[in-house]
Amino acid sequence: MPLYDMPLPELLTYRPQVEEPPDFDDFWSETLAESRAVGGEVERVRHDGVLRTVDVEDVVFPGFGGDPVHAWLLTPTHASGPLPAVVGYLGYGAGRGRPHEHLRWPSAGYVTLVMDTRGQGAAWGTGGDTADPVGSGPAVPGSMTRGIGDPRDYYYRRVLTDAVRAVDVVRDLPQVDRSRVAVAGGSQGGGIALAAAGLVDGLVGAVIDVPFLCHLRRAVSITSTDPYGEVRRYLAVHRDSADRVFRTLSYIDGVSFAARASAPALFSVAMMDPVCPPSTVYAAFNAYAGTDKEIARFDFNEHEGGGAAHDEAQVRWLNARADSLRG
Amino acid sequence: MPLYDMPLPELLTYRPQVEEPPDFDDFWSETLAESRAVGGEVERVRHDGVLRTVDVEDVVFPGFGGDPVHAWLLTPTHASGPLPAVVGYLGYGAGRGRPHEHLRWPSAGYVTLVMDTRGQGAAWGTGGDTADPVGSGPAVPGSMTRGIGDPRDYYYRRVLTDAVRAVDVVRDLPQVDRSRVAVAGGSQGGGIALAAAGLVDGLVGAVIDVPFLCHLRRAVSITSTDPYGEVRRYLAVHRDSADRVFRTLSYIDGVSFAARASAPALFSVAMMDPVCPPSTVYAAFNAYAGTDKEIARFDFNEHEGGGAAHDEAQVRWLNARADSLRG
Amino acid sequence: MPLYDMPLPELLTYRPQVEEPPDFDDFWSETLAESRAVGGEVERVRHDGVLRTVDVEDVVFPGFGGDPVHAWLLTPTHASGPLPAVVGYLGYGAGRGRPHEHLRWPSAGYVTLVMDTRGQGAAWGTGGDTADPVGSGPAVPGSMTRGIGDPRDYYYRRVLTDAVRAVDVVRDLPQVDRSRVAVAGGSQGGGIALAAAGLVDGLVGAVIDVPFLCHLRRAVSITSTDPYGEVRRYLAVHRDSADRVFRTLSYIDGVSFAARASAPALFSVAMMDPVCPPSTVYAAFNAYAGTDKEIARFDFNEHEGGGAAHDEAQVRWLNARADSLRG
Amino acid sequence: MPLYDMPLPELLTYRPQVEEPPDFDDFWSETLAESRAVGGEVERVRHDGVLRTVDVEDVVFPGFGGDPVHAWLLTPTHASGPLPAVVGYLGYGAGRGRPHEHLRWPSAGYVTLVMDTRGQGAAWGTGGDTADPVGSGPAVPGSMTRGIGDPRDYYYRRVLTDAVRAVDVVRDLPQVDRSRVAVAGGSQGGGIALAAAGLVDGLVGAVIDVPFLCHLRRAVSITSTDPYGEVRRYLAVHRDSADRVFRTLSYIDGVSFAARASAPALFSVAMMDPVCPPSTVYAAFNAYAGTDKEIARFDFNEHEGGGAAHDEAQVRWLNARADSLRG
Amino acid sequence: MPLYDMPLPELLTYRPQVEEPPDFDDFWSETLAESRAVGGEVERVRHDGVLRTVDVEDVVFPGFGGDPVHAWLLTPTHASGPLPAVVGYLGYGAGRGRPHEHLRWPSAGYVTLVMDTRGQGAAWGTGGDTADPVGSGPAVPGSMTRGIGDPRDYYYRRVLTDAVRAVDVVRDLPQVDRSRVAVAGGSQGGGIALAAAGLVDGLVGAVIDVPFLCHLRRAVSITSTDPYGEVRRYLAVHRDSADRVFRTLSYIDGVSFAARASAPALFSVAMMDPVCPPSTVYAAFNAYAGTDKEIARFDFNEHEGGGAAHDEAQVRWLNARADSLRG
Amino acid sequence: MPLYDMPLPELLTYRPQVEEPPDFDDFWSETLAESRAVGGEVERVRHDGVLRTVDVEDVVFPGFGGDPVHAWLLTPTHASGPLPAVVGYLGYGAGRGRPHEHLRWPSAGYVTLVMDTRGQGAAWGTGGDTADPVGSGPAVPGSMTRGIGDPRDYYYRRVLTDAVRAVDVVRDLPQVDRSRVAVAGGSQGGGIALAAAGLVDGLVGAVIDVPFLCHLRRAVSITSTDPYGEVRRYLAVHRDSADRVFRTLSYIDGVSFAARASAPALFSVAMMDPVCPPSTVYAAFNAYAGTDKEIARFDFNEHEGGGAAHDEAQVRWLNARADSLRG
Repeated sequence: MPLYDMPLPELLTYRPQVEEPPDFDDFWSETLAESRAVGGEVERVRHDGVLRTVDVEDVVFPGFGGDPVHAWLLTPTHASGPLPAVVGYLGYGAGRGRPHEHLRWPSAGYVTLVMDTRGQGAAWGTGGDTADPVGSGPAVPGSMTRGIGDPRDYYYRRVLTDAVRAVDVVRDLPQVDRSRVAVAGGSQGGGIALAAAGLVDGLVGAVIDVPFLCHLRRAVSITSTDPYGEVRRYLAVHRDSADRVFRTLSYIDGVSFAARASAPALFSVAMMDPVCPPSTVYAAFNAYAGTDKEIARFDFNEHEGGGAAHDEAQVRWLNARADSLRG
Repeated sequence: MPLYDMPLPELLTYRPQVEEPPDFDDFWSETLAESRAVGGEVERVRHDGVLRTVDVEDVVFPGFGGDPVHAWLLTPTHASGPLPAVVGYLGYGAGRGRPHEHLRWPSAGYVTLVMDTRGQGAAWGTGGDTADPVGSGPAVPGSMTRGIGDPRDYYYRRVLTDAVRAVDVVRDLPQVDRSRVAVAGGSQGGGIALAAAGLVDGLVGAVIDVPFLCHLRRAVSITSTDPYGEVRRYLAVHRDSADRVFRTLSYIDGVSFAARASAPALFSVAMMDPVCPPSTVYAAFNAYAGTDKEIARFDFNEHEGGGAAHDEAQVRWLNARADSLRG
Repeated sequence: MPLYDMPLPELLTYRPQVEEPPDFDDFWSETLAESRAVGGEVERVRHDGVLRTVDVEDVVFPGFGGDPVHAWLLTPTHASGPLPAVVGYLGYGAGRGRPHEHLRWPSAGYVTLVMDTRGQGAAWGTGGDTADPVGSGPAVPGSMTRGIGDPRDYYYRRVLTDAVRAVDVVRDLPQVDRSRVAVAGGSQGGGIALAAAGLVDGLVGAVIDVPFLCHLRRAVSITSTDPYGEVRRYLAVHRDSADRVFRTLSYIDGVSFAARASAPALFSVAMMDPVCPPSTVYAAFNAYAGTDKEIARFDFNEHEGGGAAHDEAQVRWLNARADSLRG
Repeated sequence: MPLYDMPLPELLTYRPQVEEPPDFDDFWSETLAESRAVGGEVERVRHDGVLRTVDVEDVVFPGFGGDPVHAWLLTPTHASGPLPAVVGYLGYGAGRGRPHEHLRWPSAGYVTLVMDTRGQGAAWGTGGDTADPVGSGPAVPGSMTRGIGDPRDYYYRRVLTDAVRAVDVVRDLPQVDRSRVAVAGGSQGGGIALAAAGLVDGLVGAVIDVPFLCHLRRAVSITSTDPYGEVRRYLAVHRDSADRVFRTLSYIDGVSFAARASAPALFSVAMMDPVCPPSTVYAAFNAYAGTDKEIARFDFNEHEGGGAAHDEAQVRWLNARADSLRG
Repeated sequence: MPLYDMPLPELLTYRPQVEEPPDFDDFWSETLAESRAVGGEVERVRHDGVLRTVDVEDVVFPGFGGDPVHAWLLTPTHASGPLPAVVGYLGYGAGRGRPHEHLRWPSAGYVTLVMDTRGQGAAWGTGGDTADPVGSGPAVPGSMTRGIGDPRDYYYRRVLTDAVRAVDVVRDLPQVDRSRVAVAGGSQGGGIALAAAGLVDGLVGAVIDVPFLCHLRRAVSITSTDPYGEVRRYLAVHRDSADRVFRTLSYIDGVSFAARASAPALFSVAMMDPVCPPSTVYAAFNAYAGTDKEIARFDFNEHEGGGAAHDEAQVRWLNARADSLRG
Repeated sequence: MPLYDMPLPELLTYRPQVEEPPDFDDFWSETLAESRAVGGEVERVRHDGVLRTVDVEDVVFPGFGGDPVHAWLLTPTHASGPLPAVVGYLGYGAGRGRPHEHLRWPSAGYVTLVMDTRGQGAAWGTGGDTADPVGSGPAVPGSMTRGIGDPRDYYYRRVLTDAVRAVDVVRDLPQVDRSRVAVAGGSQGGGIALAAAGLVDGLVGAVIDVPFLCHLRRAVSITSTDPYGEVRRYLAVHRDSADRVFRTLSYIDGVSFAARASAPALFSVAMMDPVCPPSTVYAAFNAYAGTDKEIARFDFNEHEGGGAAHDEAQVRWLNARADSLRG
């Protein structure tokens, strides 16, 4: 795919006014309060696998509405805490898979919790374990339009709440230094990490790769690649529902979360990305309120972005911030 | 697509032994009994539309577990009953849409109930109105693998129950001659109609076009086109779950329903159909227990099958059976 | 397909100067006069089908040069006239098919004549019955470049004449109120309806969905999707013929017909339509001379546009105009 | 494309019984007699081009029904006659183009007449000049189904007659040795050359590459690639017309022409050809009645077959036969 | 992709006679002897990266002809040796990338050497570092046909020699128990591992996923997917070279290496794999001479095969064999 | 493909500043001097083929570094010299194939040398005979990124040197008038011809069709079609190497060669060309220093451009220039 979005100079200063509902903050504070009020136990079971450098636990924690959410918890075997930690979120369609698929952060010294995305995990990869126990009105195949008729029913309200609750869980782990917890993810995982950064204070860092769920009205207009394409197809069938749909989406737009975030942030963007167009990423990055922010730009990449080539820079970037906070 | 399945002579006598669970009949009699026991009211509201030859009502009836299921009810304006009736089921991904999209049967003199398929209707066409209020474990985008881990959780258990309940509703309509109720549909709708014919006695006819949901193990092996492809992708991710998945599917296999059906049946099959392979259709047709059965074969068609070119033959076929029962 | 044509504000005021030959009006008045002079009988044979709410006749009428053109004539069975009427034109590649495929307008109370498009009908659907008895020089597969070397030989000269003759036929039907005849169609049918509106006076309405055949030079440059793509490929082979080809096309450009039309008009346009780009539709709509005009815009649809979701609005729009003229 | 048709050993002996109408010979003898009876002049105009090794004439000759058919006539400039000659036929969709596109045979010493295929030439390449002045009923875009409802109306009846008339023309050229005239072509051109070999006696050779129009019922069933795919799509729309269509096609099946041919023949076949499946080529080759016959097999090629790599072998093969007849 | 190769029962006993040159063993013993004779130093440089559970070294060792080949060497930080080791080979087009992309085996306790594939690494992923300093005659884009005209010039002669030399290197590492060295890889890497198992004695295990380079004549005939498709295209251009090409390939066919291998082997195969067809994999597995052999079959997967879901089983399988040899 | 690059008025005056290394001229004068210094014999062997109007010789001449480069030399049989000559270069992936594939120029009276492109010729067509005896670091499949890390190692340094040496060879042929030698080619061949025109003085003409290798940074950004796409993919893997890659490419950019060329030039450009975008062609044309220059524009063509329809105009254009120089 060649360059197709705005020219770079425009991107660098692109700060669109996205729709933001007046009760955005209330919506989220109530949502989180409700789920936290439900409470519930965190189950941690030692996973008897093949890894010897990392201890693995199979975790189930109470997410949105107390729904059970599965996660892998990986702790470097030979490290002594309290340790910095990363909460990792996944790309669209994948599940948490197998523990050894998540060795990067723990091998670099971080306690790592990899959260399943509810209802996802069957489209590719090695599977997930977390149900989304909530039904939906007619939806385009996929997660993107489930419950889209109302912000309170919307699928991502549940997922983003799960994400915040995962941070809660990690902060309470005995081996973790709660002042040094970061969030990280790419694509959908990047969108979730960005939301978490907007909803949780005191994170040591947010690593946000080619994030999804940003500047949604523009995204749906300039790309028809899935998952944004799911929304376009929904609107193509429900021809009168654009206002309602975009109102719902305005409660989960990464640009609004960015404007509320304060943690140090490392974004990445790919200039030829047909899935998460660069202008939607820059819209979030430019709106990001935290002052310690950087963006890695990949000029010739599509949605793979920096891929594994960017991983070490992310670890070093986070090391710098986590080390400075070490007690 | 060229010919790719068995040669015609083999198809004509193809009678595979499909997996059938020993409690198949109990499963369904209990399922139907439970939902009938829930009961609930049928709501019928006159639809103030543009049609003058047909009276339209917007119907909500209690389906599986009493869940509200939407339907259009069309009655020929100038006909005097009791009239024969058709219960129509829809293709994969579509919703009931608008009433004037269903004029064929009522314009031919049949009371017609077009049932929404729960949770579907957003993928194409003009939309549906019926939610599926049940969550699911990780599923491939689409309906086909929702709840596939257990026959009691499986999506099509609910849909097929809705379908039977729709027949219940139509039989109780004052303008309908309850001895002359037929079921009809194509593709997914054909699979649903076939199931209804296996679950309900005394139907005047079953019109089953290029039916989906037949001979599922073979279908998943010889075509990767959706929706069967959804199952293949699920199994590609859940590499150890084939037995469990095919056990669940064995409760909704059209071949097993066919073996229990007695109503007159008009099938159709398309020899170049990549979506519902001809061998899976013939497996059901050849197993069909009713003795008044025919199959229209379209040698050069893909999944469109007979399309609208076959509609008049269907009406005439059903007229012959409905007229012979006229009081 | 994402948005790709002009931004909406530009579209709303887009009024390009299209090429228009000085003898445009003479060309068409002579063409129509010649074909009307040929005369010929209209054959109407009762069709013994399955419909009971609508009377169906199989019609053959003399079109361009007196060539026999087939049509279905549907009259609501229980209505008493004189009735308003709709002349319907078909999309590219389709034939008139079967009568029950055209129940919308007659079920809403309109006498309806559905005209075959000569030479078409074999590409999809259920077939047509009308030959185009005229040969052609080398042409790209399809109808679009047959006879394109000279306006007098051009395929659409014949088709548009057929369309006008179809209006003549309907106006002379005994059950029709000749002051309340409308034209309607989508895509190619929309282009034909627009041409008819430009060539015939006194229509009660023109329903023009995502019309083809508008602003042809721009269309051929900004989309390579068929059927406009047929012209592009022709020009790619006949590298020196652009002037001649566009001169021929200037005799059938919907923008020029629009500038001559006076009937009330309801257009529709789809903003992501790769087949009939929105700028070509707005070029025609903005040029449309009739003052009672509206356009329904579908922001997230491709060429399906409003589809069946827009049908009822069209009936209501036409009812309002037809009722106001009722004697 | 991998191997997909019969295994080689079966191909080598594949001799299917194709449908052949009882009046096949009468049909063709009458058809040719009628067109020959129409007569007409052959126009030859010197073409003032850029070639210096070959003299070029722009020829128009009377084909089927006397219709004007264009051709290029190329004569080696420095050769002295009477010379052997080749009549060349073109692939589907192409026109005769420009003279310098046909230098192979004349540069090897053969007078060469390259015949336009009527109505074709606009799909790719550099164009054709010959109209098909005959209309058609509804046809799939392309030539393949024009007039397919009746053998007398069928497009290829006209084309094959043109092909025979082209041989007539070449035999009467002063510079040509009429006992040493060959026919040649690939794909559609191969099918035409094969027909000519079946309809004309005394040819010195027939060079038939990956021929189209052979064993048509099988071809339509095992490949959906165009142009055979045009027939499949026609049959998909005209669901009741298979008998009529295949009856028409039986008058132009290359297998039947092969059984009547006596000229030395050099066929070629490509084992991975999705356009002209190898079994259809072997059906014709194995049926070929002439005893001096060979087939070049290309095991890993698709429809390009031997391409230009096979050209020299063809010239040498024809030289051997033409030289042996030299006076 | 649906099932397309042989049925399972045939696969289980499929033992084709592949072409094997009489000097196969001499060819390889001479090739290896020559390269070993060249000798050269192994360079090991500590890589200053971000990993803390694994020590990483950047290795350059002398491969075929002494050419420098790059590799990552990963040793578990807290393990004490002598340790078992795995030599890993890569899939087609990839390079060794970054060290943290190879954490599975070292995190399970194995010293791991990941060998670059010479000349590859630029097609996807994060790059390679090893040149192939040898030119080639005309080749299809890709590695597969470079030097294919002669077994001594052929690309894979060099790669397979590199692979054996990599085993030599690992066996000489101080931290490695030379009796417990295994080889592993998938796709191309699986083909290379299989060759290594055929060329090197005393391996503790060979983990061979969906191997490429097996039963090459059949592979090229039944799939046109790359990289086998590269050979098909080469043969489509070089129409006379099949014998020469398949002779070259017979020196690197995995079936011949299998017949010479004795190490315990764990194969995997995917039944819907269009890249490495299951019959080619079973041909190698069934020919495998070692008696301790298993094959994991994935019935609904394409070329991804078992993916990460199979990783733990591989580790456990190798642990069982490595532990039994522990001193 | 529709129009996608700059509007025509901008193209006509588009003169971008491309990167040009300060030692561009030194680089090339040294490169050419070195290869000329190596010297070597030109082998000419009479080719015993089937052509009678043209004498064919199989030529091997010393190219870059003295490497043997194959070519066909065609001389009109009946012409008497000294004759004008054309050196022809080939499109990407093709080899020189067979002599009779190159009859246009010799049949028009020109001695013609068709140069193989080293290492290419296996991707399509009838093959090449020239090896590229130089290895490469990891490269994207294809020629475009071989040796791209350093201008001295870069593949096209060798090819362009071959091209200049081919001109040297032709000028020394006895039958050639050395003052009337032209270069010609399309796509890659056009890029090579343009380079030759920038590197060699005194050419009678340069015929440059839809040239590749122009304005490379823009090309890689606005099209992802191969071969430019090979560079994009290389940069997508080697994320830090853009500066180095574009530095290398700056030594072979056609815009820089154009600025140094003085020969009369006939360019062509296709406005819908996705392979060699029109802006990159105009960038070279507008920069072309020779004052006798023209460009043929094809408004509706993709990469086929003028194709054979443009050939005669090219011959006439060159005739005019060659004739004016005739002694």
